[in-house]
Parts: sequence; C-alpha cells; structure tokens
Amino acid sequence: MQTYLDCIPCFVRQALEAARMATSDEKIHEAVLRGVLNMAGRMPMDQSPPVMGRRIHRLIRELCDDADPYRAVKERFNRAALALYPQCRARVEEADDPLETAVRLAIAGNVIDFGALSDLDEKVISASITQALDAELFGDLGRFREALQRAGRILYLGDNCGEIVFDRLLIEQLLPREVTFVVRGRPVINDVTMTDAEMSGMTKLVPVIDNGSDIPGTVLAECAPQFRDRFRQADLVIAKGQGNYETLSDEDYPIVFLFKAKCPVIARHIGCETGRLVIQGPS
Amino acid sequence: MQTYLDCIPCFVRQALEAARMATSDEKIHEAVLRGVLNMAGRMPMDQSPPVMGRRIHRLIRELCDDADPYRAVKERFNRAALALYPQCRARVEEADDPLETAVRLAIAGNVIDFGALSDLDEKVISASITQALDAELFGDLGRFREALQRAGRILYLGDNCGEIVFDRLLIEQLLPREVTFVVRGRPVINDVTMTDAEMSGMTKLVPVIDNGSDIPGTVLAECAPQFRDRFRQADLVIAKGQGNYETLSDEDYPIVFLFKAKCPVIARHIGCETGRLVIQGPS
Repeated sequence: MQTYLDCIPCFVRQALEAARMATSDEKIHEAVLRGVLNMAGRMPMDQSPPVMGRRIHRLIRELCDDADPYRAVKERFNRAALALYPQCRARVEEADDPLETAVRLAIAGNVIDFGALSDLDEKVISASITQALDAELFGDLGRFREALQRAGRILYLGDNCGEIVFDRLLIEQLLPREVTFVVRGRPVINDVTMTDAEMSGMTKLVPVIDNGSDIPGTVLAECAPQFRDRFRQADLVIAKGQGNYETLSDEDYPIVFLFKAKCPVIARHIGCETGRLVIQGPS
Repeated sequence: MQTYLDCIPCFVRQALEAARMATSDEKIHEAVLRGVLNMAGRMPMDQSPPVMGRRIHRLIRELCDDADPYRAVKERFNRAALALYPQCRARVEEADDPLETAVRLAIAGNVIDFGALSDLDEKVISASITQALDAELFGDLGRFREALQRAGRILYLGDNCGEIVFDRLLIEQLLPREVTFVVRGRPVINDVTMTDAEMSGMTKLVPVIDNGSDIPGTVLAECAPQFRDRFRQADLVIAKGQGNYETLSDEDYPIVFLFKAKCPVIARHIGCETGRLVIQGPS
C-alpha cells in the first residue's frame, strides 16, 4: 500500500506523541518534530507508511540515545495482557467454535497499537475484547478455515506487545500444525521483539524467529534472507496488524491479514468502516 | 501567545483540509502539504500561530492561482447566518438580559471556523446557538458590563464569515456608543473582509475599516498605521475568535476576548475545557 496524503499529518502527530512517550525532554520533542517535518517534506509517496515509521523511530531512538525507549511501557502491556489470558483462554475452550473465538480475540489484541491510539490503557483492551466477541467480522472466516486445511507450515507475523499474548490463543488452535512466530529484528515503537516473545510465553509454545528488520511492518526486501526463505516456503502466512497489511497487501503470497481497522486511510483502502475487525485473504 | 509543539501537527492537518476545500487538484494538495512541512520544519516557536496561518494560506492562494479560494463557501455561511438572524434577533429582544444573550450568540457564531472544524455545516451552527444560550460562560460578564459603562469608542475586531452576522446582534446592543467594526485587509481562509461586511449588513449598521493585513489574527506590527491609531485610541477593543486571542493576548490594551475554545492548546492556555464559551478581559 502506498502512502496517502492523509498519512502525513498523522505521521507528524504520531511522532510527537511517540517522542513524549519516550522522554520528558521537551528539547527532544521539538527536535523529533522538526526532523520528521523535514523528512516528510521529501518522502516518496510510493513507499508504504511503515517505511516512514522506521525513519521516525530511528530518529527518536537516536535523539533519546536509547535503543528501546518503550521497553517499560511494552512490558506493562505484556503484563496486562497476561493477566487477561486465563479468562480469554477459558472463553476459547468453552466456545461452540473455538477457532472463531480465538480469531476474534487475536484481532481484539491488535488494539494495543501506540501508533494508532494515543489514549491506550488496560480499560481499552478489555473493551476491545468485549466488542470483538460479538462484532461482525469484515471478511471471510470460511476462506481462512479452508486455507488452514491445506496448510502444513504456517508463518505467523506478530505485531505488538501485549497483543502477542492474544496471538497465543489463536496459535494454540492452529497446533499441531507447524507454526513459526515472527518478531521484528530490532525494537521499533511497541512492536514485538524476541524479548516479548519470551515474556509472553510464545517461545515455549512454538519456534520464534526474527525478521532482521526494524520496520514496523514487513518489507520483504529489507528483511533477513533466512526470514525471506521461510516466508516463501510457508503454505500460509498469518499477518497481524495494520503495519503488516500496509507492507504486504500487494505481495502475491497466500497471506491472511488479521487486524482492527483503526486508521481511516486503511479502512477506506479495504472498503470498510473504521473500528471493524478485519480478516482478509488469502487471495 | 507563542506556538506550541501541539500546534504543528494541527497546521499540517489544517493545510491539507484547506487545500482540499480550495481546489480538487491533488497535485496542489501535495504541493501545499510539502510546502507546509518545509515551512513548519524551520518556523520559530516564539511567533503566534496565525503568523504561520498566513504563510500557509499565502501558499494555497499562490498554488491555486486564486486570490480568494474560499469566496463561494464564505458566501454560503454568510447566507446561512443571515437566514438565522431574524430568529436570533427576536431571542435577544425577548431576553431578560439582552446584552448577555447577544454576547452568547456572538460567541456561538464563532463556531464557523474553517481552521478549527473540518466537518462544519449549517446544523453545527444551529447546535452551537442552542448550546450557547444555556452553557456556563468561562469568564466574567460583569467586568465586560463595567468596561462598557466607561467606553465611548469601541473597536470590534471581526473574525469569520457567517459569524459576522452574529456580531451584528451584539453591536446592536452596544449602540449608540461609537462602534467601529474591523475586517482583515485581504482574504485569508474564511476570515471576514469588506465584501462580507457588506453582504452581512454590517456596513449599514456601523463604520467598517480594514486592518491592512492578511494574518488570520491581529499582529499590530503588521497592520496598517491608520488601523493601529484607531486601536490605540479605542476605550475598549472587543476581539472575536481564537486568532485574535492568539495574537493579542499578550498586548497591554483594554481588550475583551470573545470566542469558543475549539482548540485544546488555547483551552489549556486560558485554563478551561475545550468547547467552552470564553469571555476574557479587559485586564
């Protein structure tokens, strides 16, 4: 997906919010803002929005002199999600259709997105779960079920901290198929890294690899060769979150996208309203 | 008032919205956006936000090759307000306290602000009137009444099209004092110019002068010398709207500010919640 003009004011707003979450130093807030204005003034519109996201977050990390400025807040959301895990797992086990309930909860977890939501807290996660259990899905769960019947090797691309705990619920339903979970290669905003895969219990459930990149999405050309091989060999890729959709929606692979449509530009791109639970593909 | 970091993402968003309102040419939308990003990356933060507003709107007018790209939409809001004038005038005449009702309606009209509101239509104006008649004022109407008792010469600084019709209601209550209404020197976004003073009936009620500037506020140093003389000679200045507040709040003159606090930065600056009807000064 290309970058739209409406993404630009959003980049600027997100950069300021992210800088404030990373440090209380107002000089750094201003430097981040000016840096992002200059970058955005020259950015090519044919690249996907997460490529700009990488540049913004590299600048924040550099100016903060901190390789992982959101570590504490990422751990907070991992813990909050882990506290909800037992009751969510019980919901899946008691459900008439455990796979559907697990899909809904995995999408509900996608609300934990620092880029899209500025007023995120534990209450927002609980509300997202309640909404996700009843809301109409935008897309075809049947097509996902069919794809699963033929899929021996599944690559599951994670998205955010906290959310990864809800991904466990869905992956538990996919076993005993061969599932590999993928995290980002380095910290970028609140995206999952190997540390979060360990903290969330994911590493005890399935093999976890990293993609070698610090883009908050999956730009194949920028990922490690080993990851690209795994991507091409997979029978089915499950891609969580808006960033993975923005970077992979034009790729010709068997991918199913699961996310909450938080951004109006993405919602318009796929033809749904903002706030919908999206399941798209595989094509 | 200085420019705050939170103003910057808002400038970028407003510039895109204003460009779209001015033309359907997407190449111009992108050129405006890139131009504003470059300007904002270098702007001094000690100037007031309307100074940046002037630069944005000069760029839009230049790229659109149109000295007044909002002419049609300004006329639409003048007409919409004129349609509401008879019933609003009746409300004032029947009121127990006509001055207070006129102040409330003049502030209600300040909702017609293209900079602050992107989804403005006639329904929003009607809702603003209904709300303004009952809402608690933020500020001291008594101080304004006292100032009026001593004020022979009043300078009334207008703000937006449409809103000017509601300013008539208040000015009618100020007569037979000597009131002069002030419009901007040249078109800038939907701010009032002499054309709107004529269309709204203001020129038939009181003398109207222009301030010689195309800033969507009142930066005295940038205004015409004749206007500055009138400003200094006035016993009381009534300044409508956020732009006039942002540019005059640090000036040491007897000024009463009347506006609706639509912007969170201004609301925080004066210590009220967003959406409040504000009457501040004279100090």
